[in-house]
Amino acid sequence: MRTALVAGTGLIGTSIALALSARGVRVHLEDHDPDQPKTAAALGAGTDEPPAGPVDLAVIAVPPAFIAGVTAALQRRGAARGYVDVGSVKGGPRRELADLGGDLDTYLGTHPLSGKERSGPLAATADLFEGRPWVLTPTAGCDTEVLNLALELIALCRAVPIVMDADAHDRAVALVSHTPQIVSSLVAARLESAPESAVRLCGQGIGDVTRIAASDPRMWLDILGANPGPVADVLAEVAADLEETVRSLRALEAADEAKRDAGMAGVEDLLRRGRAGRDRVPGKHGAAPAAYETVSVHITDRPGELARIFADAGEAGVNVEDVRIEHATGQQAGLVQLMVDPGAAPGLIAALRQRGWSIRQ
Amino acid sequence: MRTALVAGTGLIGTSIALALSARGVRVHLEDHDPDQPKTAAALGAGTDEPPAGPVDLAVIAVPPAFIAGVTAALQRRGAARGYVDVGSVKGGPRRELADLGGDLDTYLGTHPLSGKERSGPLAATADLFEGRPWVLTPTAGCDTEVLNLALELIALCRAVPIVMDADAHDRAVALVSHTPQIVSSLVAARLESAPESAVRLCGQGIGDVTRIAASDPRMWLDILGANPGPVADVLAEVAADLEETVRSLRALEAADEAKRDAGMAGVEDLLRRGRAGRDRVPGKHGAAPAAYETVSVHITDRPGELARIFADAGEAGVNVEDVRIEHATGQQAGLVQLMVDPGAAPGLIAALRQRGWSIRQ
Repeated sequence: MRTALVAGTGLIGTSIALALSARGVRVHLEDHDPDQPKTAAALGAGTDEPPAGPVDLAVIAVPPAFIAGVTAALQRRGAARGYVDVGSVKGGPRRELADLGGDLDTYLGTHPLSGKERSGPLAATADLFEGRPWVLTPTAGCDTEVLNLALELIALCRAVPIVMDADAHDRAVALVSHTPQIVSSLVAARLESAPESAVRLCGQGIGDVTRIAASDPRMWLDILGANPGPVADVLAEVAADLEETVRSLRALEAADEAKRDAGMAGVEDLLRRGRAGRDRVPGKHGAAPAAYETVSVHITDRPGELARIFADAGEAGVNVEDVRIEHATGQQAGLVQLMVDPGAAPGLIAALRQRGWSIRQ
Repeated sequence: MRTALVAGTGLIGTSIALALSARGVRVHLEDHDPDQPKTAAALGAGTDEPPAGPVDLAVIAVPPAFIAGVTAALQRRGAARGYVDVGSVKGGPRRELADLGGDLDTYLGTHPLSGKERSGPLAATADLFEGRPWVLTPTAGCDTEVLNLALELIALCRAVPIVMDADAHDRAVALVSHTPQIVSSLVAARLESAPESAVRLCGQGIGDVTRIAASDPRMWLDILGANPGPVADVLAEVAADLEETVRSLRALEAADEAKRDAGMAGVEDLLRRGRAGRDRVPGKHGAAPAAYETVSVHITDRPGELARIFADAGEAGVNVEDVRIEHATGQQAGLVQLMVDPGAAPGLIAALRQRGWSIRQ
């Protein structure tokens, strides 16, 4: 790929243009707002001059409702060899492009799963997509050349390509992106008219749950408006669980003990299913629990012995995952068992010995 | 306060004991599990020997369902001059203590709003409460001496005292703590049986919303079981908003344009109310939007000029909040208007001048 056209110079379009420009592609920028490409160009994302002839790849980076229209217009003027969009919803835009008489063979719907709370070209960075999934939704009729241009685009942006069916993609993002957005707004909306004395008690938990409720409502209206069915389906399942949870909590207020037991079981079921689901979220919290290795250290009954072991382990760069203490009866002296990742055990033993601790073999 | 008894040596009890011990209070530790006080003592939190006579203050740090029983037992043996509990729920335990014939004059219900994903004494730290709210729920009959002991406890833990009615407290934590916990579990529970292809697309948004769903289900069952009414009341309001949102999304699938407009209005209303509520969450994101000052800089049409201005502003430690560009027609050269916090403008002007930029007065 030597030349590209980026139509739509918001956060995503400008970030793609920055990445392509940094890797030597000549990028032409356009937008319905003529000032935006100038800003993007001034950031080093390319040029706002129109290309002299057809480019290799046109990247359509506009809100979902405008994808089909912009793509069809670019195709009519023969702007490129291939056309990919990068919108958050994939099924609807393809159907709309077909209705508009667009060329489905040179079009490929894609979706880079990257974002920020801030929007617009000024928030753009060339590394926005590094290591993040980038979904491709090719159909059987898709030109191989266009598919390869899209894979080259993803490689130049250092993202990870994933192939999915367009409608399966829309159901997936309804679950992992659009539903959390709505639910975050539902919790945050409860605070709008809450007493100040309650708001003062907010901690990190509600801070995390409501963080994405700060996002731009217009952008989310565009996204949700393009994917209403799948989002409503997931939310209906959430609503069923929620109703059941309210019923369980009401049962906990009952005088009847059997009712209270049923209520506790209902709440516990939700909490356990939630924990199981959370364990699947990729990232360090979602990693499978490791099998730990035990390092046994002798301690005396001086106060603060355990704290000193933790401090020494910390200085050695070792994270102690769990601990058990075998006490001689009635004494604090005894054996401390430190559970650590297997790879960390030899280093911990060496470091503790160096600091004067006695290790049991 | 010279002596204290901490009953319950989990995360909160051990953290309090560490803070008191660090400030010279002699702390006695006890727990229904006799190994836990030994671990806490080994961390430097105090001694697991019983006190010789009554201590100044007994701190009851046990799950909500056990607060009344443990407090009444301590009072019967005359363990202290004053008794405070540090549980997450306040109305029920006081009523249960009255039912058990406990002394309500020497008892004061309190709640430090601190926590961690990890529990147990090994996660404890003396600074867990620093700068965090610590609610006191005194009644008219509460001994002044006990109130002052509680205020001294809060001061020694470097927390911020807030006085509230016990039932108002329970409604407040239902809103800002217990409801987010349930809702986080509701979203996470949807992932339990989701296809792997969908789970791969998880990003930071769902990561934040579901973070607290990883918490210990048993601990949360204790808390929710002690506050079912207020939590159910808030969740019922969430459920009403959720049903309305599902209706709005279904309307977006309709052929009728008026229905679609009504659906868009419904979704937009939720997103806007969520954003307004989120703005009230304390912390940097909740701060009132500042009025910005404008710094105008001349730029030429060399590529990357704007990027260089941002880099220079960043090196000067100034955060550019917004930007506008006035272009001479058809050229990238022109005037860049940088919006910054008023206090940062003079420093930015000086730093940009030093780096060779021309500033318009």
